[in-house]
Amino acid sequence: MSTEGPAPLARLVAELSRLPGIGQRTAQRLAFHLLRAPDEEAFALGDAIREMKEKIGLCEECFNLAEGPLCRICSDPNRDRTTICVVEEPADVIPFERTHEYRGLYHVLGGALSPIDGVDAEDLKITELLARVGRGGVSEVVLATNPTTTGEATALYIAERLRGQVSVTRLASGLPVGADLEHADEVTLGKALAGRRSIE
Amino acid sequence: MSTEGPAPLARLVAELSRLPGIGQRTAQRLAFHLLRAPDEEAFALGDAIREMKEKIGLCEECFNLAEGPLCRICSDPNRDRTTICVVEEPADVIPFERTHEYRGLYHVLGGALSPIDGVDAEDLKITELLARVGRGGVSEVVLATNPTTTGEATALYIAERLRGQVSVTRLASGLPVGADLEHADEVTLGKALAGRRSIE
Repeated sequence: MSTEGPAPLARLVAELSRLPGIGQRTAQRLAFHLLRAPDEEAFALGDAIREMKEKIGLCEECFNLAEGPLCRICSDPNRDRTTICVVEEPADVIPFERTHEYRGLYHVLGGALSPIDGVDAEDLKITELLARVGRGGVSEVVLATNPTTTGEATALYIAERLRGQVSVTRLASGLPVGADLEHADEVTLGKALAGRRSIE
Repeated sequence: MSTEGPAPLARLVAELSRLPGIGQRTAQRLAFHLLRAPDEEAFALGDAIREMKEKIGLCEECFNLAEGPLCRICSDPNRDRTTICVVEEPADVIPFERTHEYRGLYHVLGGALSPIDGVDAEDLKITELLARVGRGGVSEVVLATNPTTTGEATALYIAERLRGQVSVTRLASGLPVGADLEHADEVTLGKALAGRRSIE
């Protein structure tokens, strides 16, 4: 026995510590939990990973996660097909859907422009977005890349490529709801000030 | 699509959120990480869980984790068989082994006495510990249950049962190395004071 317990336990701890944000101690705690858990419960986790890897691919239209050729949003006849919301990652679709206020389609770029990390326009699904808009029927493209340097650069680049073809909008920047003005950073506060709106 | 993405993804998020200390948001972050990870890496986690559940049992002698009938510590001819360190859980063996200062054997109780939670002496491996001591050859039993109410009660109960048969010791309580006196809680400080030792 190594000091970390039997080999199969040490191997599980090693696999768990490869997950983002899971350190050695947390991995050990999780491994002991799985060791004590009923077999069905422990095996269900591995089965869920396998099922997800085997069944989920990318939508041929918008590159969101999909169980078939098209994701459920692109296949939904009730969605508004005149609006496309452009996001960086599939995970970004979830908060939009949670608002229940957006009824249009999405386009998942698969990242943001970052020349320093070797991510250029051809590494993202930008050509595919231009093609979707070019096929007609789209009246607005909402650029919902992250409010970060790379997200802003990506939004500006796409806005330039779409200029004159379609209405292009960007999500508002400002104070998050419930935020405390005292602790707002100056960049966010500057954006909130610049984007101030008149109260009727 | 539910707002949380395709069903296999939602299922994995649900399985991950059952782990202790993993909330909904962390589970979602881990699931997206596994989705992006290479198949081998994602499957390795599930395989490690299965291997651990199938290969690890309890040592027939000390009830520590074991890959065969006896754990590697009980099967190691170089361990000092005159000393038994009594701990609550298999996970408690690991920090002892890491010290590289303990060369004796262990006895894992499988918990601590807690009548309020329905854990009585017969639910723990106490009879088995008495039998081990009864077979002779043991000169010291180190009670290393946790310094908590239930751990202390368990240590006192076992000390009483072993009285007169063998030397029984308890781990020292006091300030942890590197601790800040200013932030020490009064119970720990009281124990540190009561257990003070003269400096030669």
